[in-house]
Amino acid sequence: MSISNIKEIKSCNDGISINKFKANGIKTEKYGVALIWNENLCDCAAVFTKNSIKANPVKYDIAQLNKRKKFKAIIANSGNANACVREGLADAEEMCKIASEKLKSNPDEILCESTGIIGKRMDIEKIRKIVHDLDINEISSRNANKALMTTDTKFKEISYEYKGIKIGGICKGAGMIAPNMATMLCFLTTNANLGENYDVSNAEILNECLKEAVGESFNMISVDGCMSTNDCIILLSDGTKTCSVDDFKFLLKFSTKELAKKVVADGEGATKFLEVVVEGAKTQNKAKKIALTIVNSNLVKSAFFGENLNWGRIMSASGSVAKINFDNIDLKFEDIDTNKVVEVLNKGIANKLDDWSIMKAKNIRILLNLNEGENNATAWGCDLTYDYVKINAEYN
Amino acid sequence: MSISNIKEIKSCNDGISINKFKANGIKTEKYGVALIWNENLCDCAAVFTKNSIKANPVKYDIAQLNKRKKFKAIIANSGNANACVREGLADAEEMCKIASEKLKSNPDEILCESTGIIGKRMDIEKIRKIVHDLDINEISSRNANKALMTTDTKFKEISYEYKGIKIGGICKGAGMIAPNMATMLCFLTTNANLGENYDVSNAEILNECLKEAVGESFNMISVDGCMSTNDCIILLSDGTKTCSVDDFKFLLKFSTKELAKKVVADGEGATKFLEVVVEGAKTQNKAKKIALTIVNSNLVKSAFFGENLNWGRIMSASGSVAKINFDNIDLKFEDIDTNKVVEVLNKGIANKLDDWSIMKAKNIRILLNLNEGENNATAWGCDLTYDYVKINAEYN
Repeated sequence: MSISNIKEIKSCNDGISINKFKANGIKTEKYGVALIWNENLCDCAAVFTKNSIKANPVKYDIAQLNKRKKFKAIIANSGNANACVREGLADAEEMCKIASEKLKSNPDEILCESTGIIGKRMDIEKIRKIVHDLDINEISSRNANKALMTTDTKFKEISYEYKGIKIGGICKGAGMIAPNMATMLCFLTTNANLGENYDVSNAEILNECLKEAVGESFNMISVDGCMSTNDCIILLSDGTKTCSVDDFKFLLKFSTKELAKKVVADGEGATKFLEVVVEGAKTQNKAKKIALTIVNSNLVKSAFFGENLNWGRIMSASGSVAKINFDNIDLKFEDIDTNKVVEVLNKGIANKLDDWSIMKAKNIRILLNLNEGENNATAWGCDLTYDYVKINAEYN
Repeated sequence: MSISNIKEIKSCNDGISINKFKANGIKTEKYGVALIWNENLCDCAAVFTKNSIKANPVKYDIAQLNKRKKFKAIIANSGNANACVREGLADAEEMCKIASEKLKSNPDEILCESTGIIGKRMDIEKIRKIVHDLDINEISSRNANKALMTTDTKFKEISYEYKGIKIGGICKGAGMIAPNMATMLCFLTTNANLGENYDVSNAEILNECLKEAVGESFNMISVDGCMSTNDCIILLSDGTKTCSVDDFKFLLKFSTKELAKKVVADGEGATKFLEVVVEGAKTQNKAKKIALTIVNSNLVKSAFFGENLNWGRIMSASGSVAKINFDNIDLKFEDIDTNKVVEVLNKGIANKLDDWSIMKAKNIRILLNLNEGENNATAWGCDLTYDYVKINAEYN
């Protein structure tokens, strides 16, 4: 992404409710329900968890998407993951029915998602009650976002415009954010119509773009290295704006990266945001693997929480997944807010600097140059704190 | 391992000082040094970390073992890992020289190892001073063990006898214990002579046996999923007892598993010991991968710390690395001390039991049966606690 292009991206305040997309939600003490809808059928693209144990709504959506690519709405709940429960597939179907009655549409035009505890049956009557209470004349992307929060502490909403292309989105996800996504639900809306000049359908091109964007954004973040049964990213397009694939991809990558960063910045118990940039690798895959291993390392993460310069752990993590020539390594830390840069290693030789106050920064960029090739990758993560353990020891 | 054979194993009190092997050590505030030696040259086998960034003593030992297979002694220090420091190879060589002067032998007959912080130059004069103070007329496996402790809180010593074969050992390692070993130093001694009836040398057969035993013991434990630059397991044999490969392998596997379990039971901050047994897998590799992923999952580990029944996290971890048919799954928890067993899942259906006091047990066995094949694997780990974060945030 060139910086001059990024400057052309306009930030809007619509959240997921761009154009004629609507959204609203209600959060009660334990359960929450969000509805996202459009009066017209929209082209749909989606990426789901690679976990072989898939939650029931994921199974349901995959089956639906195998039949058709046009949908009007998404219903999603927090409070129960609807995973590892045999009756759950019928519950997922029932959720779509409840939404369709509310929106006066067809259940087959609706997708569903869930987040929460695994292995307990969903309380479908609670979902019915909340949907009944939901006001579909009010439009509030914020309420929809709030309805899906579990251990999240911050809203994760975006809405951007670039050359007339709009993308809106909301995200849920705090812990369990891992190399291959996580209990992360992400819903995106757009007006992009990419099919006009091609032989394939808009939905098909949207899907390719989404996969590519997810590979560089949600698959490059980590809170705790665990992959969930419920992860998904669903994109709906009303197709009202014809545009080039390149322009759309550019905005989609930017949008998903911004949401991904919001997710890790709100990682369970996190006090620091970490951006790991691996440069000069022989292959793209190697750069990605090293960047992810660093943001996933409990030892690296605890060292940053302790504001303790322990760069050896960064090297140890890197060497554990790839062949590293330590004598080539440049390592720098950058305070993302002030752009102050500190050189830690220069061609494998440690800097004797006494001032390591950079470790006190809240947002830190770790720049690791392998000096062996031309490939770069960026991953995002957070520190490992007492509160991560507390939240996950007590969660039920 | 058959239980009747295991009953024939006699536990002795020699630690690593079996037969004519001697050991002693001194631990000062920051540095410690252990010496393990024999008056005669011993056959040597060793397994080192797979991390591509290897500490200097590891590089030094590998080079030495490429030249010869007979050694008299090992010198090891705590306080500094001698890793990621350019001058470190000369320091490792100097350590061996210091030991050889003390033991009046040849520096080429000595191996060395280090554990501690990465990236800082070793204080070789401290090592020299400690070795000078060391009394080689005193034999104390316990002192040698103590000298290597960093964040360890418990001794890790064994000595067993089976059909006249003896194996002694000491181990250092608390955090950083991972799928492929960890900052774990393990030294083993034996009297086994396996070469007598074969065309290959004793050292060669010892090496094969050691690799196999490590695969089932140290490579199946995890404290935090991080692989260190310094991991090693070194085995010395005085060759005084001719025995069968099968008998030796049996005792070696038993010994390394016992040491490996002591390592995880002393994992940084750990309050619970976890044994994960995956049964009925299609392949051995699949069983191993699932068992290790479960003991490595931060979410599973924090749930056990919180004594919180959250079996969904075990399923989610399993499904993240292998194809799982949830409807086939049997899951049981067993209190290792009382042998009380609680059925959690029966063919994918959750037990509605109200009494989950099993979660309060200190030593828990997780039995996961995939019911799809004949292969089993066992991995060992511990819970993730506030103290793990505290220890690793403050360590320097």
